[in-house]
Amino acid sequence: MGAHAIDELLRYAPDKILHIYTVRSKQSDLLTACEKKRIPITYVSADQLTKMAGSDSHQSFLAHIKPRHYFDVSEFVEQAEETSFVLMLDQIFDPQNFGALIRSAECFGASAVAWSKNRGADLTPSAAKTSCGASELIPLIRISNLATAVDQFKDAGYEIVAALLDDKATSAYKFTYAPKTVLIMGSEGEGIQPLLRKKADRAIYLPMAGKIQSLNVAQAASALLALKVCMENRKR
Amino acid sequence: MGAHAIDELLRYAPDKILHIYTVRSKQSDLLTACEKKRIPITYVSADQLTKMAGSDSHQSFLAHIKPRHYFDVSEFVEQAEETSFVLMLDQIFDPQNFGALIRSAECFGASAVAWSKNRGADLTPSAAKTSCGASELIPLIRISNLATAVDQFKDAGYEIVAALLDDKATSAYKFTYAPKTVLIMGSEGEGIQPLLRKKADRAIYLPMAGKIQSLNVAQAASALLALKVCMENRKR
Repeated sequence: MGAHAIDELLRYAPDKILHIYTVRSKQSDLLTACEKKRIPITYVSADQLTKMAGSDSHQSFLAHIKPRHYFDVSEFVEQAEETSFVLMLDQIFDPQNFGALIRSAECFGASAVAWSKNRGADLTPSAAKTSCGASELIPLIRISNLATAVDQFKDAGYEIVAALLDDKATSAYKFTYAPKTVLIMGSEGEGIQPLLRKKADRAIYLPMAGKIQSLNVAQAASALLALKVCMENRKR
Repeated sequence: MGAHAIDELLRYAPDKILHIYTVRSKQSDLLTACEKKRIPITYVSADQLTKMAGSDSHQSFLAHIKPRHYFDVSEFVEQAEETSFVLMLDQIFDPQNFGALIRSAECFGASAVAWSKNRGADLTPSAAKTSCGASELIPLIRISNLATAVDQFKDAGYEIVAALLDDKATSAYKFTYAPKTVLIMGSEGEGIQPLLRKKADRAIYLPMAGKIQSLNVAQAASALLALKVCMENRKR
């Protein structure tokens, strides 16, 4: 749902849109673009749209999209390139944070986002909206058990990095990632579950210059992903 | 308002808290800490608290704080150090984005945040909550006219940098900031007003690896501020 999310999808993956539902009877750029791509449009009442979206934040636009393909870990690692970076989310319960994290991952060129619907938010229309359509553009790994998934990634040669404040954690301004990496981020309140922390090969943290020691997880992810690119540029 | 925001303030600037209003009758760590610091606590109904905060997102806690000191530009530049970095916000209308930007600025050690209440959100309880208390910890420059303010900063030796996608913009992965800088960021939808763009000495942009070309402004700010630190470390 959401005009901006649908607009991005229309631009980069129009084939994924099967049908548009909207309350507008007047023309808009979005609808004109849909008509050009021959995507069927159905006009419904605002109440109906809210019911269909399960939220009233639809901004008058809802898209019926092709079923998403969710990778499992073995399928993903088989087709992964030599350089592969997976953002794994643990205990992210807020759908807006969840969507924002997917957006950051897509923008900074991560290979995939992995999460467990048993330990946090799932990909709801609200999360997809906040992701600005990124949820349909980046490979998604939706798993039931994150600990098992971490073991599978390890077996496939991935290094597991946990983002946390810890004595042994390395500053993000000095951290060099392995070519195949899973970066685990947890929520501000809950952090990363102890079992996953134990399984991590290394830990990374974002040094803070101010007094407040933690950013919102989506802002922290943007900073970490930007710094990853910065450090890789430096190596060259 | 908000437990986490008040908690941060209690930790780093308890003197700023004059009074706590809460609906809880049971003890909480936050209230125990307030009692230790001899901050008066008044119990009110949830409805009263919502009315006082002007929002129902208060999480049962509202603090009456000392009046904020708002700098004007001339006062700020007079007391500024030789290295000074001001984040200027233009047309940020969403109070949550506004609060998140203040939080990023504080976390990455910016010298101040500047904005005009005539061209965007103002520092409401909602914005202060999202800032996690950072709004009381970082110097604030609240001005009526941003263009005049930009001229004043220029006269005081600041370089003005606009964050925007522009042919002449420099990649954030290559950008070196002057010791005294004002970085202007605009909203995702509106961007930076043309007059401010014209007044900017240079432009900076955040290259995106994915298909979606823009992050949420608060996420973009985190990335830019982290990259600023990364580039400064590189110079050393």
